[in-house]
Amino acid sequence: MAEFSIIDQFCRDIGPKHSSTKLDIGDDAAVIRPDHGSELAISVDTMVSGVHFFEDVLPERLAHKILAVNLSDMAAMGASPKWATLALTLPKADPEWLSAFSSGLKKTAKRFGLQLIGGDTTQGPLSLSLTIIGTLPLFKALVRSGAKIGDEVYVTNTLGDAALGLALLSGKFELSPLNRAHAIDALETPEPRNEFGQSLLDIATGCLDISDGLIGDIAHICEQSSVSIEIDLDCLPLSSAYEEYIELNKLDPKSVSTLNYALNGGDDYELAFTASPEDAAKVLNRADECELSVTKVGQVIERESHKVYLCSNGARLNIESSDTKSFEHFS
Amino acid sequence: MAEFSIIDQFCRDIGPKHSSTKLDIGDDAAVIRPDHGSELAISVDTMVSGVHFFEDVLPERLAHKILAVNLSDMAAMGASPKWATLALTLPKADPEWLSAFSSGLKKTAKRFGLQLIGGDTTQGPLSLSLTIIGTLPLFKALVRSGAKIGDEVYVTNTLGDAALGLALLSGKFELSPLNRAHAIDALETPEPRNEFGQSLLDIATGCLDISDGLIGDIAHICEQSSVSIEIDLDCLPLSSAYEEYIELNKLDPKSVSTLNYALNGGDDYELAFTASPEDAAKVLNRADECELSVTKVGQVIERESHKVYLCSNGARLNIESSDTKSFEHFS
Repeated sequence: MAEFSIIDQFCRDIGPKHSSTKLDIGDDAAVIRPDHGSELAISVDTMVSGVHFFEDVLPERLAHKILAVNLSDMAAMGASPKWATLALTLPKADPEWLSAFSSGLKKTAKRFGLQLIGGDTTQGPLSLSLTIIGTLPLFKALVRSGAKIGDEVYVTNTLGDAALGLALLSGKFELSPLNRAHAIDALETPEPRNEFGQSLLDIATGCLDISDGLIGDIAHICEQSSVSIEIDLDCLPLSSAYEEYIELNKLDPKSVSTLNYALNGGDDYELAFTASPEDAAKVLNRADECELSVTKVGQVIERESHKVYLCSNGARLNIESSDTKSFEHFS
Repeated sequence: MAEFSIIDQFCRDIGPKHSSTKLDIGDDAAVIRPDHGSELAISVDTMVSGVHFFEDVLPERLAHKILAVNLSDMAAMGASPKWATLALTLPKADPEWLSAFSSGLKKTAKRFGLQLIGGDTTQGPLSLSLTIIGTLPLFKALVRSGAKIGDEVYVTNTLGDAALGLALLSGKFELSPLNRAHAIDALETPEPRNEFGQSLLDIATGCLDISDGLIGDIAHICEQSSVSIEIDLDCLPLSSAYEEYIELNKLDPKSVSTLNYALNGGDDYELAFTASPEDAAKVLNRADECELSVTKVGQVIERESHKVYLCSNGARLNIESSDTKSFEHFS
């Protein structure tokens, strides 16, 4: 099957046709005309078979996930997702696989208002790379560099579920069917927090998604905001799947190693953000409006080191957060 | 080596810092603020080891080429290249390779005014995917759909050199050292035609780059402009390397099979475009100003089929252009 035909058959009509899109798939480039008075947020994320997903993952789920991981970057900036280009590398052109993949793209793109305006298909080991573009009001982007001493630190939803899902698929342990499904869904079909991210535009002082693990990502806020952050282990929001994992394996629920998936697990597309204590009620209201739970897990403190510290039972633990293992490629 | 550190060390400070770039590498997304009254052209191209390049290609050359193939899409739209995101998948993080690759990126990005504002590195089989964004004055994009009956068809520079280079590297035949170097350079370090493409904004009625081969790409102008195009085999501009290939192999210089590299060879990042005969002098003047040769190779004709026809010695050849083999992935 020819490249032109793959793009024509499976990459057209993905997501809404924005009126600001002047030319989409079919020329040397797409053409967009952004509104005056807006900024654009641009991000790229790649997923490689055997590194970021199992080769036999359902194509609908893979399609959702490549969109979700990029949508999550828009959520972390508070941007409204608008356009995307997809580079799809495939070992072979299997129409059945492509058709399921395409319908997965359509469903998620439609739900989040994202239009696919460019595509490139090549032959090679299965991998996907998506560049996403979103719009932002001027000067409002949620960046990593604005956290202030005294701010509170929040995370959305629960932590570590995707890492639990990966451990389950790798056969490390078992959970009851419902909890197993919950954790695998967290891994394969994460829900990006776009509506909530946008609602934080006037509230959050620092924000990012924690796709590389809570501690490793929070450390970026510390570096870029020149602050330190203390995370309270007693406050980490855990799912019932995580609770079952602790019980079944008879783990100490307070120990750092038990909490490792929550602290350092990758692929959690939740937001971590900082906000002034004065805005605490607003934070909870906005979360309510988005039918999302948020949990205060720590605070921004003054320390010259610009690091993440852990505490429990009101006392700082004598453990460097960098001793816990963050999720890194090439590590 | 950690992903964050690869991006930090090797993907920062690539290309000029545009004043319209509000945030570059280091957050969940880059932020740009395009000028009012401009449109953006956006395109993506991927290169996979073993498919688009030999694994042992010099990293500086690979860096140039991933930029060049994308810059060429901007040239084909008449857009000024401004920003890019790079997804880099590497089997291992080799600092020496990365350093050479990074310096190749810097050199070419600087020359074309392109700023790298986003990167993602992952572990896996070597491949590169770049999304490029350029700016365009409103309503001026060079598209494939504007060719008019009676227009003349031009190409820049010479045809088929990259395909010759690939044949040389594959050991199919030999050429004298200078011609060999010319053809391999055409394959590995193609020169995108950005200055000339931008100078065509008020002249060309249809335009594209012929990276998939002259005939296959010209066919897209035919389909999208609802016209047919006749290409004159006697007018194809050939390099001295191509002439030597014909002589050494004692080929009939007029036969379609001899001209196959020129007609259907991939990886020629030249522009093909249509323009009114009234603008013929302008076309040549603009090319002169860019120190580039352009050649009239055909004309837009009225035929219901919307196909490419070949002629020689003033007579149409009794051969369907589709009988000649175009460059396609998954073919």
